[in-house]
Amino acid sequence: MNTIELIKKKRDGKTFTDDEISFLINLFTNGKIPDYQFSALLMAILLKGMIPSETAALTNSMLKSGKIINLSSIKGYKVDKHSTGGVGDKTSLIIAPIVASAGVYVPMISGRGLGHTGGTLDKLESIPGFRTDLSLSQAKKVLKKCGSVLMGQTKEIAPADKLIYSLRDVTATVESIPLITASIMSKKLAEGIDGLVLDIKTGSGAFMKNYSDSINLTNSLIDTAKSFDKEVIAFITDMNQPLGNYIGNWLEVYESILVLQGKKKNDLYSLSIKIAGAMIYLSKKAKSIQEGEKIAKQKIENGEAFERFLEIVELQKGNVNYIINLDKYPKSKFVRKVLSQKNGYVSEMNTYQIGMASLELGAGRMTKDDKIDPKAGIIFYKKIGDYAKTDEVICELHSDSKTKIKFSERMILESIKFSIAKPTLPKLIKKVIR
Amino acid sequence: MNTIELIKKKRDGKTFTDDEISFLINLFTNGKIPDYQFSALLMAILLKGMIPSETAALTNSMLKSGKIINLSSIKGYKVDKHSTGGVGDKTSLIIAPIVASAGVYVPMISGRGLGHTGGTLDKLESIPGFRTDLSLSQAKKVLKKCGSVLMGQTKEIAPADKLIYSLRDVTATVESIPLITASIMSKKLAEGIDGLVLDIKTGSGAFMKNYSDSINLTNSLIDTAKSFDKEVIAFITDMNQPLGNYIGNWLEVYESILVLQGKKKNDLYSLSIKIAGAMIYLSKKAKSIQEGEKIAKQKIENGEAFERFLEIVELQKGNVNYIINLDKYPKSKFVRKVLSQKNGYVSEMNTYQIGMASLELGAGRMTKDDKIDPKAGIIFYKKIGDYAKTDEVICELHSDSKTKIKFSERMILESIKFSIAKPTLPKLIKKVIR
Repeated sequence: MNTIELIKKKRDGKTFTDDEISFLINLFTNGKIPDYQFSALLMAILLKGMIPSETAALTNSMLKSGKIINLSSIKGYKVDKHSTGGVGDKTSLIIAPIVASAGVYVPMISGRGLGHTGGTLDKLESIPGFRTDLSLSQAKKVLKKCGSVLMGQTKEIAPADKLIYSLRDVTATVESIPLITASIMSKKLAEGIDGLVLDIKTGSGAFMKNYSDSINLTNSLIDTAKSFDKEVIAFITDMNQPLGNYIGNWLEVYESILVLQGKKKNDLYSLSIKIAGAMIYLSKKAKSIQEGEKIAKQKIENGEAFERFLEIVELQKGNVNYIINLDKYPKSKFVRKVLSQKNGYVSEMNTYQIGMASLELGAGRMTKDDKIDPKAGIIFYKKIGDYAKTDEVICELHSDSKTKIKFSERMILESIKFSIAKPTLPKLIKKVIR
Repeated sequence: MNTIELIKKKRDGKTFTDDEISFLINLFTNGKIPDYQFSALLMAILLKGMIPSETAALTNSMLKSGKIINLSSIKGYKVDKHSTGGVGDKTSLIIAPIVASAGVYVPMISGRGLGHTGGTLDKLESIPGFRTDLSLSQAKKVLKKCGSVLMGQTKEIAPADKLIYSLRDVTATVESIPLITASIMSKKLAEGIDGLVLDIKTGSGAFMKNYSDSINLTNSLIDTAKSFDKEVIAFITDMNQPLGNYIGNWLEVYESILVLQGKKKNDLYSLSIKIAGAMIYLSKKAKSIQEGEKIAKQKIENGEAFERFLEIVELQKGNVNYIINLDKYPKSKFVRKVLSQKNGYVSEMNTYQIGMASLELGAGRMTKDDKIDPKAGIIFYKKIGDYAKTDEVICELHSDSKTKIKFSERMILESIKFSIAKPTLPKLIKKVIR
């Protein structure tokens, strides 16, 4: 086998064998294929595609480039969920304790925020002391003790993915369904899980803005999961407005706690219950997703989910005082109320731009080395379908920088459209595929 | 402008502006775009194509990355020809002296052989002492004195092309019509020519094996030449068998001399006359290509073309004794006659494989650093349409290595097919486009 001939093969739209894919991934991971050849290959894959068997082989080679967490010493069903990411998407923080409190193990490897979306690790680290950089053996201990662990990718997990991703990022080869699939699944499969629930976001704040792309990605993820004998349920969910009302790292932890305490029953609550229900169903602790949802709701009502959250925070060295006494947390220097400039129903929210406005306030990062301000962000009081009178508060901007607030306010005002008639609300869960 | 956004643009099938192309080429040439980004861009260009205005802008940026030879001090029409390369294609050596002897200037920048095809520079350098590494001022002096110069690409000529070509070579991005066009035309335009005759090879020994690809490349080259106000005539010519009877560096010089001396009137002669005729016609020394051809034939008959060849060799420091006394040249240690194994007409010649057999004998190089044996090669006594009896000599293999001859003989026998009925001869000139 020869790298140039294999690039040619994909360039000409042909199908790789499993051996060819493993040859390419092994050599690249071991530094034996230069970046300039691999990036040409990535572009050929993006433009010519891969059939499901190729995507599965790619996932397998990337998975095998590292370790698979051995959870055989922990008896019981292990399940995770993966979201393709959006603005205000903090369901992981709510779902993990709910499902763990239902007696199902949730080993969760998450990522950091980049661009307009936040990342679970950044949100968790806004809790003073919280450690996400656990070793595999530390992670196993936490998982065993409290039924869940929320951690970052270690060096041992799918190192090929890290190398390939950083090359894709700078060569315009991110938006490829087989490459996205292999990147997601190689990390998820390394968790040693039995089942997986997928939350595929679609809409203005999602990576996949187009509905048919979301369907294609979902099918590719499901095909790949099944080829590894994993049980899988996928939800295609709305990202045409932020999920929940809070955006920004600590602000999202704050909202998650309100939901876990049963104090907030918004779209964030509904989606978290749905996904948790599906995870509980996959573990066979419920006979249907509906029954799983019922269990999830009970775990909130009886306080067990919030208790479990406190346990996770404590085991991962987070300071629970901030969780118990939410007002203790430091506030942003400036809080600016954004007022409606007209009477009308909120009819559209450019969620990508809202994510970028939040980044502008200090809640996100444009490049990997940017620092995050955990306090910064946005609280929305109006979402699609809500009526706002002139000068009524649409949202609140939190930041330590007055100039950034000004700039961000303009972005927010530009991103929201009003209508005289009440608009149809976007459907939160657009499709279930299994 | 941002490199990643521009890669995305081409990836998504959009059209670059002139400024965007010049931004990309300037940055890459100055080492400010890393190879791994540029190779992803090259793959996107290969797969998504370029429209004629983009190809022209790319050619222009690559041309402007270096110097354009200023030939304004030499009064008279300057014309060159370019062949896309094939096996036994030595027309440059014949055409340059013919056209120069007709009073037209021929500044010719040529390349080296790689893979199954030979290169004009390697052929010329088989003449002891012959220098192709002339500086621009030396080249101008030779051109002024004898009407032609046969030289290699200097560092000043289209440096962007050199950088891009070496990246294309290792990233499976050679076979792109806009990239091939810009590579050829940026070098040809740097010669300071007024007109250009193109010889686009098609068939088993050509880079473009497929006729419709050859037509597309031809149209792209013509469009680009015209956008720079250059006069151009293109011939699509057959490469389903070697051109002429001799393959290998000195062997091809030898055959060219026989043609220049009027001693050989084969397909090589016919094609050289046709191209030279078109070049003379472009210079307006003839009223038609046919009249140009007549002049070309006269220049051979009256000895002026051969005289001019001797002058070029002398001015470029070649030892003319070897040209005047052809038998003086050293011979290969081994000469093997390949005999026909059956009675029949030669009906097919896998010309790519014949090129590779010649390379095997020592006449070519697989990688840029391989050394060439100038004496090595093949002389064909039978070509398509010729009848061969069993044990009649088809060709002669020349090499210093007995084992290489054995291997090469097997390749040659495999590459030639015989038929009982006389086959139709391939048409030498398939199409003229202008």
